[in-house]
Amino acid sequence: MRLRNVKNKEEILKNSNYLVDNPSTYKGKWKTYFNNDNPIYIEIGMGKGDFIIENAKRYPNINFIGIEKFDSVMARACEKVPEGLSNLCLVKIDALDIDEVFSKEVDKVFLNFSDPWPKKRHASRRLTSHVFLAKYDKIFRDKCEIIQKTDNVHLFEYSLVSLSSYGYKLEEVYLDLHNNLDIDNIMTEYEAKFSAKGCKILYLKATK
Amino acid sequence: MRLRNVKNKEEILKNSNYLVDNPSTYKGKWKTYFNNDNPIYIEIGMGKGDFIIENAKRYPNINFIGIEKFDSVMARACEKVPEGLSNLCLVKIDALDIDEVFSKEVDKVFLNFSDPWPKKRHASRRLTSHVFLAKYDKIFRDKCEIIQKTDNVHLFEYSLVSLSSYGYKLEEVYLDLHNNLDIDNIMTEYEAKFSAKGCKILYLKATK
Repeated sequence: MRLRNVKNKEEILKNSNYLVDNPSTYKGKWKTYFNNDNPIYIEIGMGKGDFIIENAKRYPNINFIGIEKFDSVMARACEKVPEGLSNLCLVKIDALDIDEVFSKEVDKVFLNFSDPWPKKRHASRRLTSHVFLAKYDKIFRDKCEIIQKTDNVHLFEYSLVSLSSYGYKLEEVYLDLHNNLDIDNIMTEYEAKFSAKGCKILYLKATK
Repeated sequence: MRLRNVKNKEEILKNSNYLVDNPSTYKGKWKTYFNNDNPIYIEIGMGKGDFIIENAKRYPNINFIGIEKFDSVMARACEKVPEGLSNLCLVKIDALDIDEVFSKEVDKVFLNFSDPWPKKRHASRRLTSHVFLAKYDKIFRDKCEIIQKTDNVHLFEYSLVSLSSYGYKLEEVYLDLHNNLDIDNIMTEYEAKFSAKGCKILYLKATK
């Protein structure tokens, strides 16, 4: 997600209690950051953070880490987090460096409304390409679990095939998530906007 | 597919050159029926046969077998087949008996616009349930390959999960088949009708 430049972003980032400085120093020992053994769920490309913040509020016994690479977007997320969420932190890195920051300690990866990289020659940049799935292998503690939401049909089709050929099994697939209210769904900013326009939200849960 | 009663159906069925009497006598030796070693592709629930007939015309080096359980529907298919297609035959059985009629000799299964059996308690009747996938294991020669087309979102979601959990890998998935013109698509009767109404056609190819 890109965003118009936030003028005082450096200051916001510097003053945030949630943004982790030098996150790679916690590689393999994020439980020491949270000071507990609770599961760790990460969202890669969290945008302004609505999804991960709401998750952290609802599930105090799970640790959440929101990942975003753009300074201005991260600044907006930092502004949005309320005080006192001890089970949430934010990490500003490129998704390509995910395996420099985590090692065998993540229990779930959320990919919400990721960049679809529509051109075929950019397919490896999609967050469900085998390039990224190989990186995720290094960061998952034990069982791999990926949950993806998107409104982009081609990204979704690609993800189903890519995950399947990499050895993931599809546990759940919904082609119109908001018509399946059994699911405990927390909306992202994009999702609320697109869904209000009548776009169908595509959802998958895959495990390996 | 059901159809209004065709009055002279018995006569049509009796006189068809394509409908195979006692198909179970060919179990394990369908190549003797066709008198060649060409691949065998079957369509389970062929309806009035447009899809399988057009396939047989286009691909003379593949043997096609259309399967349908309803007399009246089969009668309409028998009427539609032109003379002289030596690579096509029709078999009137219930899909549940598929493994009584074939054994280790089928190369591809087409499931087009199958009954979605929408109620959860009927899920095992769907042609991509594990009940049927276990039967297909017995009829495939070597590699298993299933191609499904449907306009039913819930059946499609179910199929993706069921095939995946059974060990199939998804090779191709399209959520709007007719917008992917790379695919060599032959339409069924339903497909032409639904697609004209603006329904999106869902497509998957899975192998094991």
